[in-house]
Amino acid sequence: MRLYTYFRSSAAYRVRIALGLKGLAYDAVPVHLVRGGGEHRQPAYLQLNPAGLVPALEDGGEVLGQSLAIIEYLEEVHPRPPLLPQAPLDRARVRAIALTIACDIHPINNLRVLQYLGEVLGAADSQKTDWYRHWVLAGLGAVEALLAGDRRTGDFCHGDVPGLADCCLVPQVFNARRFGCDLSAMPNIVRIAANCETIEAFRLAAPGNQPDAE
Amino acid sequence: MRLYTYFRSSAAYRVRIALGLKGLAYDAVPVHLVRGGGEHRQPAYLQLNPAGLVPALEDGGEVLGQSLAIIEYLEEVHPRPPLLPQAPLDRARVRAIALTIACDIHPINNLRVLQYLGEVLGAADSQKTDWYRHWVLAGLGAVEALLAGDRRTGDFCHGDVPGLADCCLVPQVFNARRFGCDLSAMPNIVRIAANCETIEAFRLAAPGNQPDAE
Repeated sequence: MRLYTYFRSSAAYRVRIALGLKGLAYDAVPVHLVRGGGEHRQPAYLQLNPAGLVPALEDGGEVLGQSLAIIEYLEEVHPRPPLLPQAPLDRARVRAIALTIACDIHPINNLRVLQYLGEVLGAADSQKTDWYRHWVLAGLGAVEALLAGDRRTGDFCHGDVPGLADCCLVPQVFNARRFGCDLSAMPNIVRIAANCETIEAFRLAAPGNQPDAE
Repeated sequence: MRLYTYFRSSAAYRVRIALGLKGLAYDAVPVHLVRGGGEHRQPAYLQLNPAGLVPALEDGGEVLGQSLAIIEYLEEVHPRPPLLPQAPLDRARVRAIALTIACDIHPINNLRVLQYLGEVLGAADSQKTDWYRHWVLAGLGAVEALLAGDRRTGDFCHGDVPGLADCCLVPQVFNARRFGCDLSAMPNIVRIAANCETIEAFRLAAPGNQPDAE
């Protein structure tokens, strides 16, 4: 398997964690999202992944895009250890936590959106930081509410083994801290992120441990 | 089953289509996203769905959030007719198309984001419309590239029966037209959306056919 990745991409970080939790080896191919206007926008990369986004996973002769689609694929092809629980209602809960992060926080704060705010709307850096924090706190606030109000929350988002929701939570917490967001009102998130950080798959997937880290 | 829905919510529209394609009856409970500052932000709704977003599906004694998590749940509990193909690589493709819409277009153009642009950043209506069109065209451009470059594209996004990707595409095309986006460079999307519109499940799920339509 070959993973097209960028050390700082939160979506690539999710997939790196999932690959690590499943013990799957892969070749990392760095795609620089900033240099030269973004290698992901160059014809060579667009031929591989027409959507022009990172990450992408090459496997079985196909190139798969979208981090959550990639992780669901890994779950189907390499079911052990599972990243989703067995019961449909529980699977829906885990997916809903993952999607709250992947849909309702990350895309709004993505590099290209911040660039648009500055370049087209003339937002100042402080306004971009306020924007970033606003959506992180709204989205992680929703995640915290989902975690706090449910007896299925354990050492991790769902029970006592890490799974899909944790693969999404940890990169988002990493970014939240990078942008100076105050997470003190989110004790479940802080606790679960700390638990994840004790696990090698999460540590090895961190941006600072990637071959293309700057 | 009970669906908490808003006629104009693109995410609720996806779930309404999926329920229709599977032939599942449900009670629609309208949640008005604008009136009174938004019924989805009131304590009564937050008690049901702490994430405070529409849609939510009540089934099996639980309330499930996030449209794609809900549709995956329906697929697991009511597998016929399937909304995902069988092979893992094909399932990944369909999910990637769905997520390109659900992550990379819809959340950036959501009502609350447009409100922030106007109220906090002082964006004019014309700037909000430009913003909307920019992300629709970037995102649907990526979807068109995924459709055009793949022999698995058929009468619908994947083959000749409607599925998860079509459940996401049609509401996004509806919104794109509402905001006057020019889709003429996207022949696959236009063709597939037209095919979907011949199917009753898609028609019955449309915003104008909801009990809370204005």
